[in-house]
Amino acid sequence: MNIYFKNKTQIRVRYSETDQMGYCYYGNYAQYFEVGRVEAMRSLGCSYKDLEEEGIMLPVRDFQVKYLKPAYYDDLLTIETIITEIRGPKIAFEYHLYNETGDLLSEASTTLVFVRKNNMRPIAPPESFLKLINENKK
Amino acid sequence: MNIYFKNKTQIRVRYSETDQMGYCYYGNYAQYFEVGRVEAMRSLGCSYKDLEEEGIMLPVRDFQVKYLKPAYYDDLLTIETIITEIRGPKIAFEYHLYNETGDLLSEASTTLVFVRKNNMRPIAPPESFLKLINENKK
Amino acid sequence: MNIYFKNKTQIRVRYSETDQMGYCYYGNYAQYFEVGRVEAMRSLGCSYKDLEEEGIMLPVRDFQVKYLKPAYYDDLLTIETIITEIRGPKIAFEYHLYNETGDLLSEASTTLVFVRKNNMRPIAPPESFLKLINENKK
Amino acid sequence: MNIYFKNKTQIRVRYSETDQMGYCYYGNYAQYFEVGRVEAMRSLGCSYKDLEEEGIMLPVRDFQVKYLKPAYYDDLLTIETIITEIRGPKIAFEYHLYNETGDLLSEASTTLVFVRKNNMRPIAPPESFLKLINENKK
Repeated sequence: MNIYFKNKTQIRVRYSETDQMGYCYYGNYAQYFEVGRVEAMRSLGCSYKDLEEEGIMLPVRDFQVKYLKPAYYDDLLTIETIITEIRGPKIAFEYHLYNETGDLLSEASTTLVFVRKNNMRPIAPPESFLKLINENKK
Repeated sequence: MNIYFKNKTQIRVRYSETDQMGYCYYGNYAQYFEVGRVEAMRSLGCSYKDLEEEGIMLPVRDFQVKYLKPAYYDDLLTIETIITEIRGPKIAFEYHLYNETGDLLSEASTTLVFVRKNNMRPIAPPESFLKLINENKK
Repeated sequence: MNIYFKNKTQIRVRYSETDQMGYCYYGNYAQYFEVGRVEAMRSLGCSYKDLEEEGIMLPVRDFQVKYLKPAYYDDLLTIETIITEIRGPKIAFEYHLYNETGDLLSEASTTLVFVRKNNMRPIAPPESFLKLINENKK
Repeated sequence: MNIYFKNKTQIRVRYSETDQMGYCYYGNYAQYFEVGRVEAMRSLGCSYKDLEEEGIMLPVRDFQVKYLKPAYYDDLLTIETIITEIRGPKIAFEYHLYNETGDLLSEASTTLVFVRKNNMRPIAPPESFLKLINENKK
């Protein structure tokens, strides 16, 4: 695993995100990791919103997640997001989710693909993005 | 209240829609009522999807809801949707939500506005829609 | 309207919360206002989580919302939450939602009821909560 | 892969489940697959709701999903759910998601664990459940 970029962001579990098991519902983690990667890109200097406005989108190709310990209502979670690979039009992210006492709650990974919005065809990442990655690499 | 059109549709409470109170989360009702009005329109002969593809959208202007009794996980709910008013670009809906034993769980209403997609300006409802309403009125 | 307590909190529109209209979906506002009132209570010194652990719950009885202008993806919204009334077991909240340029996007109100968790019967608000309200009133 | 049980159920993409890309948001698939497995269990003769009321829960341990083609608003999707393995306290499911024209949109799998509700300890699946599986196996 290459670490191209690493970032931490925080998120608080909303009441709406709990289920009757008393846990944060397993399906909400996809949202959390999306927040993680958007904030990672923002801290890198690249706004995902701007990317879309320039005609580029990043749909998710695959997503894997392990649920190790539950997250509970009102927990302030830390999402560690790592850009692990950029190859061709693909970009891979890894995520580690921690609670306030430092327990690792979840590990996950996603692959996304840079596509041109008007035809949904895969494209190379924008030069400006690759430049930011290279500047922040070491 | 004029009853322009009335329709019933069913929806089952998903696990993801419960909260740790053991209820269906209050914020999910907006989704249910949206399903109610889309299905009401479909049974009238008007696909909301087609409407959007023709360049017309129906954003919600206001929404009021009373929570009388809770809905629980796996409950098979009946949404009664009534088109109560069509005036200018506005269309009003009322909703009654029942569980399987016939308890009234919730009453709600929304106002939506027909707008042209390219400029978001209010417009009169399409003639084809008004025709369907008139044909089904009595 | 009495202002018992006023608080501001911020929330960023997630990608998952947008819809194909390009707006923040109207049903997500209920979640935002819930975050608003939980943070208002926290800043008052009352954790809603602790309240539940002490056997008290606050289900929502009614909810009204006006959508004045759309919220968009990645908008950093400010939720102004006001406790406007406490009478018997009931507590009323008002909400104003603003975007970064200060546009008022939405106005809303909810009534909630203090209930005992084991039997769901309405009860007076806890003394400790009323004390915090009185201390922060003016 | 052993096929212990196979079931199909349908779900329609709600407006709330779209995102501004015009797709069904990738995070909503977890909800769809949960509906798939609950309906698979129901058709087998086992209500997940009843299981919880008997003190047994089925939290998700891991989840993998591939997004092959997008699902769109109002698409009537077919979820094929397969119970592929039951070993110790674990139960594995596979899912195939199709649209109305028969395109395979997504493949996914989950592992869940039978636990006792009061202490969250893994337990063997209930005898009644194993009996249903055996009766429906071939």
